[in-house]
Amino acid sequence: MRAVTTDLRVRYSETDQMGIVYHAHYLVWFEIGRTEWCRAAGIPYAEMERSGLYIPVTRVQCAFRRRSSYDDPIRVETRMAELRGRGCGFAYEVRTPAGDLLAEGATSHVFADPQGRPSRAPAGILARLEEFRSGPRGGSA
Amino acid sequence: MRAVTTDLRVRYSETDQMGIVYHAHYLVWFEIGRTEWCRAAGIPYAEMERSGLYIPVTRVQCAFRRRSSYDDPIRVETRMAELRGRGCGFAYEVRTPAGDLLAEGATSHVFADPQGRPSRAPAGILARLEEFRSGPRGGSA
Amino acid sequence: MRAVTTDLRVRYSETDQMGIVYHAHYLVWFEIGRTEWCRAAGIPYAEMERSGLYIPVTRVQCAFRRRSSYDDPIRVETRMAELRGRGCGFAYEVRTPAGDLLAEGATSHVFADPQGRPSRAPAGILARLEEFRSGPRGGSA
Amino acid sequence: MRAVTTDLRVRYSETDQMGIVYHAHYLVWFEIGRTEWCRAAGIPYAEMERSGLYIPVTRVQCAFRRRSSYDDPIRVETRMAELRGRGCGFAYEVRTPAGDLLAEGATSHVFADPQGRPSRAPAGILARLEEFRSGPRGGSA
Repeated sequence: MRAVTTDLRVRYSETDQMGIVYHAHYLVWFEIGRTEWCRAAGIPYAEMERSGLYIPVTRVQCAFRRRSSYDDPIRVETRMAELRGRGCGFAYEVRTPAGDLLAEGATSHVFADPQGRPSRAPAGILARLEEFRSGPRGGSA
Repeated sequence: MRAVTTDLRVRYSETDQMGIVYHAHYLVWFEIGRTEWCRAAGIPYAEMERSGLYIPVTRVQCAFRRRSSYDDPIRVETRMAELRGRGCGFAYEVRTPAGDLLAEGATSHVFADPQGRPSRAPAGILARLEEFRSGPRGGSA
Repeated sequence: MRAVTTDLRVRYSETDQMGIVYHAHYLVWFEIGRTEWCRAAGIPYAEMERSGLYIPVTRVQCAFRRRSSYDDPIRVETRMAELRGRGCGFAYEVRTPAGDLLAEGATSHVFADPQGRPSRAPAGILARLEEFRSGPRGGSA
Repeated sequence: MRAVTTDLRVRYSETDQMGIVYHAHYLVWFEIGRTEWCRAAGIPYAEMERSGLYIPVTRVQCAFRRRSSYDDPIRVETRMAELRGRGCGFAYEVRTPAGDLLAEGATSHVFADPQGRPSRAPAGILARLEEFRSGPRGGSA
């Protein structure tokens, strides 16, 4: 599956009194990974929402392997692990630029309309996402 | 002016690697103070938005006097310092339960419609807010 | 297992442009649940850290069942699902005050020293946690 | 005064139910601006803290001019407006890439030791900051 890579730096606001990144911020990094994956696929998520297609999170999991700290450069690798008419799933690896694994996780999503009701993604969008996700390893995003 | 008092506890997620509350979270506490002030005035802010009246922040200032830390009990005192047809202003004091001042600040707001355009608050709401804000010191909220 | 209940209200800052709570904030609510569970057990987490015992998160999962919105009252039920010398696990149910399930999740933790190295919790603390967690259903916290 | 420019994109987590950026996040962007200003000056803030020099915020103000939304590209221009032995001040302009002003603000800081007590910055660091801040307009950071 194609991976889209996003580079970040840890913000001071993302640390906690343990001196490391507060764990919930990894979910925000996953969200940034999804945003850049969709952009790389040619369908920016902001455009999807403007067209009435929402992709809320229904499930998340994350395993924290090593600590990260303020100002550390961070690399998020995002793959779309699953795609159906009713929803999709993403998988994430958060690494140092040298490749050491900091955390890995996954999110599940349903497609929804603006009122939050389950819906099906349009066939054209599904085809485009499917083509992109199964393609070769992608470049930086 | 009537003050509405809101009691909080510092969340772990609100700390940073300096071991104290990350400063931007005081603005969130101000927002909670506004929420409880409006509720005490009899017009919950959620209801205002549902009726189409938004009160976005146009200006904020805060002076940080003492540090606060994880799990500290915090008291926010909120007053509506100014009220006009086009907008309003709130003033805040963040204190320990013993009364020591931790921070003080102020926000300015305009009234807006759901699209973010400036609007006037309905006369009935203005009258109610005016009556409440100039009243005696309020109770806990 | 004993459940400790914590009541919250959704903050405006916790919403996103979908008009509902941004999913990562549920992890913050879990953290508040842990804080109140430890307090109810007689060992406030702030005291644990001051004594040199840290309990970082190593794994988290959450399933989102229903949406919650600004100003909604929220109830977090927290149980310590597992306790060993090297770490522990918590389980959470986030509900409306009427009991409808909004989300459920779990976190895994290791005991660590201030430098983040794995350590064992002192026997006295383990005994106290064990006694509390297996006790009768607890009251509000 | 030299300006250091930092480019960001609005995160989904930074929006609120008004459909725009929640105002407190501008303070986080200011913090990122400071981080990049210090890096451009040759003294990364993470290094300052490791050497025992902390720069906590004592005062912040921000005026919000235009709205910004999810996925918008954002440019933060940061200047060090004031530098004394006991503290310093930064000024910020948040703009669209086309130059439209979204927000402007300022922060005041004291120099402090790791325990949070006021201290003086070392003469070498002061000299370097002074030389950088009064220099020509800087490049992208």
